Amino acid sequence: MRLPAAILAATFLATPALAQTMDVAALRDAALKDDIAWSITEGLTTEVGQRLAGTEAEARARNWAVVRLNALGFSNPRIEPFQMPVWVRGEESAEIVSPFPQKLVLAALGNSGATPAGGITAEIAAFPTLAALEAAPEAQVRGKIVFVDHAMGATQDGSSYGAFGVTRRKGPSIASRKGAAAIIIRSIGTDFHRNPHTGVQSWTDGVKPIPAAALTLPDAEQLKRILARGKPVTMKLVLTPKNIGPRESGNVMAEVPGRDPKAGIVLVGCHLDSWDLGTGAIDDASGCGIVTAAAKRVMDAGTPLRTIRVVWFGAEEVGLLGGTAYRNAHINEKHAVLAESDFGADRIYRFQTYVNQAAMPVVARLAQALEPIGVAKGSNTARGGSDIAPLAATGVPVISLSQDGSRYFDLHHTPDDTLDKIDRIQLSQNVAAWTAMIATVANDPTELGPVAPTEGE
Amino acid sequence: MRLPAAILAATFLATPALAQTMDVAALRDAALKDDIAWSITEGLTTEVGQRLAGTEAEARARNWAVVRLNALGFSNPRIEPFQMPVWVRGEESAEIVSPFPQKLVLAALGNSGATPAGGITAEIAAFPTLAALEAAPEAQVRGKIVFVDHAMGATQDGSSYGAFGVTRRKGPSIASRKGAAAIIIRSIGTDFHRNPHTGVQSWTDGVKPIPAAALTLPDAEQLKRILARGKPVTMKLVLTPKNIGPRESGNVMAEVPGRDPKAGIVLVGCHLDSWDLGTGAIDDASGCGIVTAAAKRVMDAGTPLRTIRVVWFGAEEVGLLGGTAYRNAHINEKHAVLAESDFGADRIYRFQTYVNQAAMPVVARLAQALEPIGVAKGSNTARGGSDIAPLAATGVPVISLSQDGSRYFDLHHTPDDTLDKIDRIQLSQNVAAWTAMIATVANDPTELGPVAPTEGE
Repeated sequence: MRLPAAILAATFLATPALAQTMDVAALRDAALKDDIAWSITEGLTTEVGQRLAGTEAEARARNWAVVRLNALGFSNPRIEPFQMPVWVRGEESAEIVSPFPQKLVLAALGNSGATPAGGITAEIAAFPTLAALEAAPEAQVRGKIVFVDHAMGATQDGSSYGAFGVTRRKGPSIASRKGAAAIIIRSIGTDFHRNPHTGVQSWTDGVKPIPAAALTLPDAEQLKRILARGKPVTMKLVLTPKNIGPRESGNVMAEVPGRDPKAGIVLVGCHLDSWDLGTGAIDDASGCGIVTAAAKRVMDAGTPLRTIRVVWFGAEEVGLLGGTAYRNAHINEKHAVLAESDFGADRIYRFQTYVNQAAMPVVARLAQALEPIGVAKGSNTARGGSDIAPLAATGVPVISLSQDGSRYFDLHHTPDDTLDKIDRIQLSQNVAAWTAMIATVANDPTELGPVAPTEGE
Repeated sequence: MRLPAAILAATFLATPALAQTMDVAALRDAALKDDIAWSITEGLTTEVGQRLAGTEAEARARNWAVVRLNALGFSNPRIEPFQMPVWVRGEESAEIVSPFPQKLVLAALGNSGATPAGGITAEIAAFPTLAALEAAPEAQVRGKIVFVDHAMGATQDGSSYGAFGVTRRKGPSIASRKGAAAIIIRSIGTDFHRNPHTGVQSWTDGVKPIPAAALTLPDAEQLKRILARGKPVTMKLVLTPKNIGPRESGNVMAEVPGRDPKAGIVLVGCHLDSWDLGTGAIDDASGCGIVTAAAKRVMDAGTPLRTIRVVWFGAEEVGLLGGTAYRNAHINEKHAVLAESDFGADRIYRFQTYVNQAAMPVVARLAQALEPIGVAKGSNTARGGSDIAPLAATGVPVISLSQDGSRYFDLHHTPDDTLDKIDRIQLSQNVAAWTAMIATVANDPTELGPVAPTEGE
């Protein structure tokens, strides 16, 4: 007679050492020569290009993803559609009218309001920080084009994005509440090229949308120099974005079925949509390349204990819509652990976890597997970024593989996010780290939870 | 009684060692802390911005230059106007229609023809080099949008611009003669940012102007990848530049009067106009900053033997119009030597001359003055670049201070040519080299000519 599945599972759980059937070190080292991640990144950025959430380009990207996941041998590649409101860019231009006439380069922020087709002309009210704008009396802002500067610098862990990104996320609503005609910010970025950094912002309740855009860093510095001359500065601004109503987006997913359906799903994610200015190579085609290549490598080594689910989320950039849709649809499935790659394609320097203390032996095994390729062990306070955050917030374990973000914000959300920026050596190290991580946790029966629900990130 | 001037002069000429009344080494070393060049570069790029030849922006720049040269204490700052035909940019956009719809980033080349307002749509005919286009039968080109790629790399001396720039200068006429609907080239540049490199090209006699533009390098690579898929590639192209007829341009000049009007003029030049996409910081506001700062430093050290003339040429980018106007107006004045700074703001690594063999002692003194700041002695085959070329071609001695051009073509003629690209340490070394050079030749009575006329560069 056959043993009941529960007894088999219990036996299995009692012998974790035996459960690690894959040679993690060999898989890891082979992945240092990976070209699957490159092929996916090259293919998606070349054959689709930009893929703004909710547009026909993102729909083409979903179809492309299904074909590719199928060709790679994943099980049941499929699209889970959802509806979303869509905002699209229009004309955008800015020029100093006086005292020194010249054009400046900028791009509208997501959900920006529009100027009339002929633009608006108003005096600039400049603030060195968001705090200065917040502290300003309405009289200083009303009817003006607000300019907010800041001092974001590059950081390995991207922490400066948290600190300075608030200027983009909250600045427009603050300016609108004070009666500003429009707001332009110094791009939330760290490069000095004439490429603006777009990004989403949302209007707080009851606030009237106003035109909102980001100047390139060279242009922000130029405007600052012009203002420093001490004369009133007048700008003409044209921004004609529009909301085109509800459209379809969707998540693409596929699996490597595990031996034990009850062992929970190892979810490895990325996002398929991109901003519209570049081709979304580092944000986030490379993330899809990395997690998919790693899952494929583990799949080719044999059937893992746990099911591995690869999810290419839709509509991340515009507000984690795919991650939220996924959580709503899949909250009742057992997820063993969540991980996402969405911070470029440079090398992994650290891993962090959010697992139960009883699972620390798995963390030790991860540390052993990752140390040889230069990945240090971090804290057990990982919260999960972007698309996995909604599900992670409900109390699902998380593993974060931290990429070097030193140059990420040179490119993030700009026209410059293109394939040529990918460093293939670093990309392969990334795949090796992900391969080692997936091979470890997908074959280890140790429960990583329970963990307390969080607020997400 | 007073000695006749001619006898005084003869006495002077016989004692060249005594003639070097300035402490060249001290002037040079003081210039390593120069901030005049920075101030000029910052001021011109901030208070005027782009200054396309023949436009009102270039006129504002001329007025700005006169005010600044006057404030610095130069003699007789003045504008010498001339007329020129003016071409201005219009709308410009490109998109792949099939097989992979997406926008590409480009900029029209100078004197480009225009498409209808609604654009043209045609298949791409791609060539890896200009030679391949030249060799192609008309049937392969007729009615197509020609794409010409190339393999320009960075060089310290800028020699790759000579080798690959021909694609921009001659490609459009070759394509037109074969019946192309339009031509797009890989930008003549070495960076990988989404900033196209514009530049002038002229239609050879009898050739019909067609739309002609340069793709950014990331876009050229993208197009190449798309073409490599082996399917016909169709592009929609919109370019609406126009010729707006004859307008005024002009050269701005001023002097440091020398003790001996017969000793000839030391002309130090730069060009005031810029391309329209950036603010012309390295091309060539910094050149004006460098030569003017150096001349000012020599002026402040005492009256030199020879008159130093600073010339900020107009309309260089569109065909050396200012240099030609200057030659025509001033060919009968005695110029002792010509020098121009028009290759960015990075450090001087070499000097070259074109002087009579009898003047080699002056070259030796230059070498001695420049060696301590890392400037090596080059050949005696300098020909003079850009604006001084027309006059140099008539047989006037030349001194070239060679700037490191390793990153010059990352920025050249792009929106990215902005102030933030200036390295102030290198800029000061540049001023020090120019100061040492001017202090040496303006105080040395040795005749640098005669030299044989050349074809110029």
